[in-house]
Amino acid sequence: MKFGNSRRFFLGAAGGLAAASGIGFPFRASAANRPGVEPFHGEHQAGIATKQQKHTYLAAFDLMAKDRSELIRLLQGWSAASVRLTAGRPIPDRTSDEQLIADGGSAQGLDPARLTLTFGFGPTLFERAGQDRFGLAARRPAALVELPRFNGDQLEPARCGGDLSVQACADDPQIAFHAIRELARLGYGSVRMRWGQAGFMPDTRSSGTGRNLMGFKDGTNNPDSSGSRRVGTPDMPRDFSEVVWVGNDGPAWMRGGSYMVTRRIRIALEHWDRTPVDYQEEVVGRHKASGAPLGQKNEFAPLDLAAIHADGAPVLPESSHARLGSAVANQGAQMFRRGYSYNEASAVTAERWPPWRQGMMFDAGLLFMAYQRDPRAAFIPVFERMAKLDAINQFTTHVGSGIFACPPGAPPGGFVGQELFT
Amino acid sequence: MKFGNSRRFFLGAAGGLAAASGIGFPFRASAANRPGVEPFHGEHQAGIATKQQKHTYLAAFDLMAKDRSELIRLLQGWSAASVRLTAGRPIPDRTSDEQLIADGGSAQGLDPARLTLTFGFGPTLFERAGQDRFGLAARRPAALVELPRFNGDQLEPARCGGDLSVQACADDPQIAFHAIRELARLGYGSVRMRWGQAGFMPDTRSSGTGRNLMGFKDGTNNPDSSGSRRVGTPDMPRDFSEVVWVGNDGPAWMRGGSYMVTRRIRIALEHWDRTPVDYQEEVVGRHKASGAPLGQKNEFAPLDLAAIHADGAPVLPESSHARLGSAVANQGAQMFRRGYSYNEASAVTAERWPPWRQGMMFDAGLLFMAYQRDPRAAFIPVFERMAKLDAINQFTTHVGSGIFACPPGAPPGGFVGQELFT
Repeated sequence: MKFGNSRRFFLGAAGGLAAASGIGFPFRASAANRPGVEPFHGEHQAGIATKQQKHTYLAAFDLMAKDRSELIRLLQGWSAASVRLTAGRPIPDRTSDEQLIADGGSAQGLDPARLTLTFGFGPTLFERAGQDRFGLAARRPAALVELPRFNGDQLEPARCGGDLSVQACADDPQIAFHAIRELARLGYGSVRMRWGQAGFMPDTRSSGTGRNLMGFKDGTNNPDSSGSRRVGTPDMPRDFSEVVWVGNDGPAWMRGGSYMVTRRIRIALEHWDRTPVDYQEEVVGRHKASGAPLGQKNEFAPLDLAAIHADGAPVLPESSHARLGSAVANQGAQMFRRGYSYNEASAVTAERWPPWRQGMMFDAGLLFMAYQRDPRAAFIPVFERMAKLDAINQFTTHVGSGIFACPPGAPPGGFVGQELFT
Repeated sequence: MKFGNSRRFFLGAAGGLAAASGIGFPFRASAANRPGVEPFHGEHQAGIATKQQKHTYLAAFDLMAKDRSELIRLLQGWSAASVRLTAGRPIPDRTSDEQLIADGGSAQGLDPARLTLTFGFGPTLFERAGQDRFGLAARRPAALVELPRFNGDQLEPARCGGDLSVQACADDPQIAFHAIRELARLGYGSVRMRWGQAGFMPDTRSSGTGRNLMGFKDGTNNPDSSGSRRVGTPDMPRDFSEVVWVGNDGPAWMRGGSYMVTRRIRIALEHWDRTPVDYQEEVVGRHKASGAPLGQKNEFAPLDLAAIHADGAPVLPESSHARLGSAVANQGAQMFRRGYSYNEASAVTAERWPPWRQGMMFDAGLLFMAYQRDPRAAFIPVFERMAKLDAINQFTTHVGSGIFACPPGAPPGGFVGQELFT
């Protein structure tokens, strides 16, 4: 291992970092089995099947690493740092190295808050503008396609793509942000942050389905990692594991991993909030209060695509969001959604209707994230139809986008993605 | 009360709204004495002395109301809605009025999460470009000055000012945002949102001083509304009430109120995170781990401005943040800070040092908020010196700004600010 180039130096060795003791902050030395600690190592990366935390910070990075070995050192260092961060331990001071100063400290004194760190590889890691920068082009999974341009896309380049993704999830926003900052700092010279996005979930009192910013229950037919939902129904044909984890259908290095698609979806809340509830319900295809499909009483009642009103119109409108997104209307296609709401100040807008006033709009909406074993059979075909037909598009604008291959979990002593480099 | 002009119609009457029952959502009817409910009525507005909640959404509005009576109806309606929102009850449906549709619903099923709503009046409410729009110019408090331009200000007009401020604070970000959205919706036609800003606090395990995004304890010498800090010391000459609440020094309508100054302060965290801790400590004037003033062991040790090193240099550097902001260095000037961190994705930047790379920076920092009985004797003189001398300015940029007179609390049946209109 080469330490000479200090600008490019990242972390000497995963083992060295993991073994070092924290200096400067009196953190507890042992974090095993503490409440609020999600294990970093395992068959799958944490942060996917993990019960969703209240806050996230999702970041995408461009790689500036000059070669494959620097990329490997980066991933080793990030994995070792993740072991410490998820256990609530600071990144240690290494005074012998000008690049490695002490942990920034904004998590000091706080619980780990169930922090998870989930890493992904974007298409450009394998090949960018025809360049095979890291000798990985031949290892690119067929499922890791570039997303097509969807109808209505208004993507801002500064919110799209990235060679690497890192998602921090935690019940405390300061913990999630701290982790990303530490990883960005440790990667200085090897990576450059491309974009970042914070998100939150509401506190749900019980295990009931949470409501999104549109005021509707969101996730009723989402596959359930806890196994409490009945599967094998038209609305839920396959279970969580079958929907999410790559198996023998993918390359060996991705088995036990998953593909993540993210979209930053701005919602015209100031418009939505002045739309009558019955119209909102036609758009969504569900009753607002109960979450039941239109015409039904129970939130979990199966979608009945054939039901019609006396006048022949479908009870569940053809353009309704629930209908278009359902497994039953998509030949059984499923994905696991694990998104967050976001809320970032406000932005200038002009009304699209009389009296065409200019004003401020909420820059708020959904940080959509979906995991699946193959986006070509899940997000892409499902959203291609929705992008054209979904009545909800009147209120939504997709402004950011990314797709990342999230490899399986790292074994103790190993690093995330290591099988890609064997 | 006139209902004819539907575009301008706001809420019929405070009493009418407060008495109406929720339709559409099965909210509990009675909210009295429920956990998580902060009373809206009282001598002071809630959200100032209230134990700080974890999340905020601060919004500023421009008034489009055409006359004084429309402004009064707005404030009546907002106060009545605030009674419901803080009790966890939805805004009712009023089908007889096209402008008043049902509550947006994103708080349905959630606890009120200690929601408070705190209203303020900006200088432009009293006079804008020489116009006395609402017959209030003569009632403007002398203390409600426009903030001067401070050294280093990089203010973005879209993040500054406003005729009215509304701050929602709650332990759930969805609750805070929901409240602002409902008020914005109810005010449609009478107000237009000018800017909004979300913020968060870390979860603190104990009653210890929380750390900000710079990793330092923040608020050690902040006046304490719970009365647990000893006052009458050079660092804490006056108690919370004396610092915050307007008394006979202000106009009658402001007695029991307070003046709020807010600044959106971007922090160059990507720069800070690569700065050695000993340098950070010189900048802040405190030890990072303990929070104690430099050269001391205890967080709450008094600042000793006279202490010098053997070489004659002050132990607490002349340019250190803690020194410059202290009461003891400001002739006893004090304010009560109740700020939040903010974290909004990232923004393009260019490095100011070799190799001058372009890249992304965190758009994150401090949503500074300070309450005081007279900003001319608190924020303004203190920050005028700090803006010129504080070493922390190397890492901070003020991009947003506002000053608002927050009137006293509303009595039951009354509305916030009612004494201004008598």
